[in-house]
Amino acid sequence: MKKRSIHIAVDAHGGDDGPEVIVAGAVEAAHECEHEIILVGKPGKIRKIMREVGMPERRPRVVTAEQVVGMAESPRASLRKKKSSIAIGADLIKKGEADAFISMGNTGAVMANMVMKLRNLPGITRPALAQVIPVPGHPVLLLDVGANVDCKPRHLVDFAIMGSIYAREVFGCAKPRIGVLSIGEEDGKGNELTIAVGKDLKRTNLNVRGNAEGRDIFSGKFDVIVCDGFVGNVVLKFGESMGRMLMDHLKGEITKDMLGAVAALALRPHFSSFKKRVAPDEFGGAPLLGVNGVVLVGHGSSSPAAVCSAIMMAARLAERGLNEKIVAAAEENADATATA
Amino acid sequence: MKKRSIHIAVDAHGGDDGPEVIVAGAVEAAHECEHEIILVGKPGKIRKIMREVGMPERRPRVVTAEQVVGMAESPRASLRKKKSSIAIGADLIKKGEADAFISMGNTGAVMANMVMKLRNLPGITRPALAQVIPVPGHPVLLLDVGANVDCKPRHLVDFAIMGSIYAREVFGCAKPRIGVLSIGEEDGKGNELTIAVGKDLKRTNLNVRGNAEGRDIFSGKFDVIVCDGFVGNVVLKFGESMGRMLMDHLKGEITKDMLGAVAALALRPHFSSFKKRVAPDEFGGAPLLGVNGVVLVGHGSSSPAAVCSAIMMAARLAERGLNEKIVAAAEENADATATA
Repeated sequence: MKKRSIHIAVDAHGGDDGPEVIVAGAVEAAHECEHEIILVGKPGKIRKIMREVGMPERRPRVVTAEQVVGMAESPRASLRKKKSSIAIGADLIKKGEADAFISMGNTGAVMANMVMKLRNLPGITRPALAQVIPVPGHPVLLLDVGANVDCKPRHLVDFAIMGSIYAREVFGCAKPRIGVLSIGEEDGKGNELTIAVGKDLKRTNLNVRGNAEGRDIFSGKFDVIVCDGFVGNVVLKFGESMGRMLMDHLKGEITKDMLGAVAALALRPHFSSFKKRVAPDEFGGAPLLGVNGVVLVGHGSSSPAAVCSAIMMAARLAERGLNEKIVAAAEENADATATA
Repeated sequence: MKKRSIHIAVDAHGGDDGPEVIVAGAVEAAHECEHEIILVGKPGKIRKIMREVGMPERRPRVVTAEQVVGMAESPRASLRKKKSSIAIGADLIKKGEADAFISMGNTGAVMANMVMKLRNLPGITRPALAQVIPVPGHPVLLLDVGANVDCKPRHLVDFAIMGSIYAREVFGCAKPRIGVLSIGEEDGKGNELTIAVGKDLKRTNLNVRGNAEGRDIFSGKFDVIVCDGFVGNVVLKFGESMGRMLMDHLKGEITKDMLGAVAALALRPHFSSFKKRVAPDEFGGAPLLGVNGVVLVGHGSSSPAAVCSAIMMAARLAERGLNEKIVAAAEENADATATA
C-alpha cells in the first residue's frame, strides 16, 4: 500500500531566532522523511540558508511570501498583511497545495489567518487552540487556550470531541478520559457554562469523567481537559510564568552561599534534564483543531530539532487522517450535540 | 488614647492536625497580645490542651460548640450543623461578641456560614474570598478565588474596592495598583465580563492599571488582581498543584545519581528556605472580604506559629478598622458603582 504524499507548509519567518533555525529544521526533516516540505517566506534569504546548512536530495520547495508578521503584532494587524508567510501558508492549504501548516511564530496571527481563510470541519462549530501540558508520565491536552473568549456549551462539547481524537492519535490513549475544567469535583458544581457542558457531554459517546479541578491538570486523572479560551489562556500564561519564577528563585536561593553554589554546579545537568522533561519537543507544538487542515504552532524559541519534530508530527497527523477522524466523531455525536 | 478591646474568635477544630495545634497557637497569641481570644469548640478537649501547653495569665476564653465540620464536608452540609464551631463563630460576630473569626478549617464551610449569617458591608454587593499570592518581593492579592462563580461587572468593581483597601492595610501600598485578570494587555481585550469591568473601573477613584494577564500574577506590575471566583479558584488550585509537582520532580531528578544525591543534601536548607519564601505565614490566611466582620481562613496545615500570626493579623485588621475603611471607599465610589 503506497502512502499518500503529504505536503507540509512551514512558516520560515516565525520564531524568535530568525529563519536560520526554521530552515535548518526543515532541511533536517527533508533528510529524514519523504514528505514534501514547503518553506514559505523570502526566497533569497531561505535559499541562502539552505545552501549554508547543506541541502538534501529532496530539498524543501520554496514558496514566496514577501511579508513577515512580527511576534508582537496583533492578530488584526496580521490579517492586513495579505502576503505574509502566514497568509500564504493558509492559502496553500485552502488551494489544496498543502495538507498542513506549521509556524513557530505569532500564535494569535496564525489563529486569525487560519480561522478566517479555512472553513471549519463539518460538524464543528468553533476551532480551538489546544496545548499539550507535558506532565511527566501523563501528558494532558488542555483546550481551548485562546481561540474563543466567550463560549457556549456546544463549543466545549466540540472541543471535547476534537481533544479526544487528538489524544488518541498523539498520546496513544485508547479511550481518552475527558474532564471539564471547573471548581469542585461533584456534578452540578461549577459555573453556568460548565454545569451545562457536564450535562451535554453525558449524551456523547466520549469517555467523560466529570469535572476536573485546577489541580487535576497535574493529577493524571484526565487526558483531555476542556474549558473556554479565556480560562485556558489565563491558566496557561499563569503556569508558564510560575514555572519560570519558581526556577529562577530556586536558583537564586541555591547560589546564595559557597556550598550551595558548588552544589548547584553539580546539579546543572539535572536542571536542564528537568526542563526537558517538563517542556519536551516531542509534541511538536500547539494544534489549532477544527479547521480544514492540520495546523501546529510551535514555541518561538524552538531549536532546529524541535522544528523538525513539529514537521514530522504534522505529517503524521495528516497521514493518519486526524481531521477525517474528527469529522467522523462529530458525525457519531451529531444527535448529542444537536441539543447542546 | 486607649485602644479599643478586640475580640477574636478562633475555630479550635479547623485544620488538618486537630485542635492541639490551634489551641497552642491561640495560647501563644494570648501570651503576646492583650486582645481577648475566644476558642470555639469542645470545651473538655480545649481545656485539656490548654493545661498541657501551659496557660498564660490572659487565658483564651472558651465558648462551647459541640459539632465539628470536617475538612471534606460540603458547604451545604456544614450549614446543617447549627452547633458547629464555625456556626457558633459566625453567631459570636453577629451578636457583636467577636470582631473577628479565624479558622484553619474548611474554606467553603466558613464562607457559607459567614455569608449566610453576616450581612454584607453597606455598599458591597458580594463578599469575596481573597488570596495573598506571596510572590517574593511583591505580594499580590487575587480575588475572588471562590466565593462567587458567576459574576456581574459590579461584583468585580466591588472586589477591586475591597482589594485596594486590604492591600493598603496589609502590604502597605499607598495606592495599590489594580488589574483585571484577562487575556491580552490592551483595553478592549478579554471576555464580555472583563471588558465591561475595565470600563466601569475607570470611573472609580482607584489606581486602575488595566488588564493583567495570567503571567502578571508574578510580574510585579499589580498589587491587586480581580477576577470572578470561577477563574480565581481554577488558577489558585492549578498553581498550588503545579508548585508541588515541580518541587517533587526536581527533587526526583536531582537524587537520581550519587553526585546529585550528595549535592541535594547540601541544598536541603535551600529548598526549605525557598518554600518559606513562596508560602510565608506572615499574611495570616485568606480574608473573606465584604462581610460585616473580619474573617480569615488559614491553611489547614498551619503550625501554632501560623495560627498565632493569623490571630494577630485579624486583630490588627479589626483594630485598624478594615471594614469601616472598605465602607468608606464604597461610599466614595457610589456614583461610579451605581451605573456598573
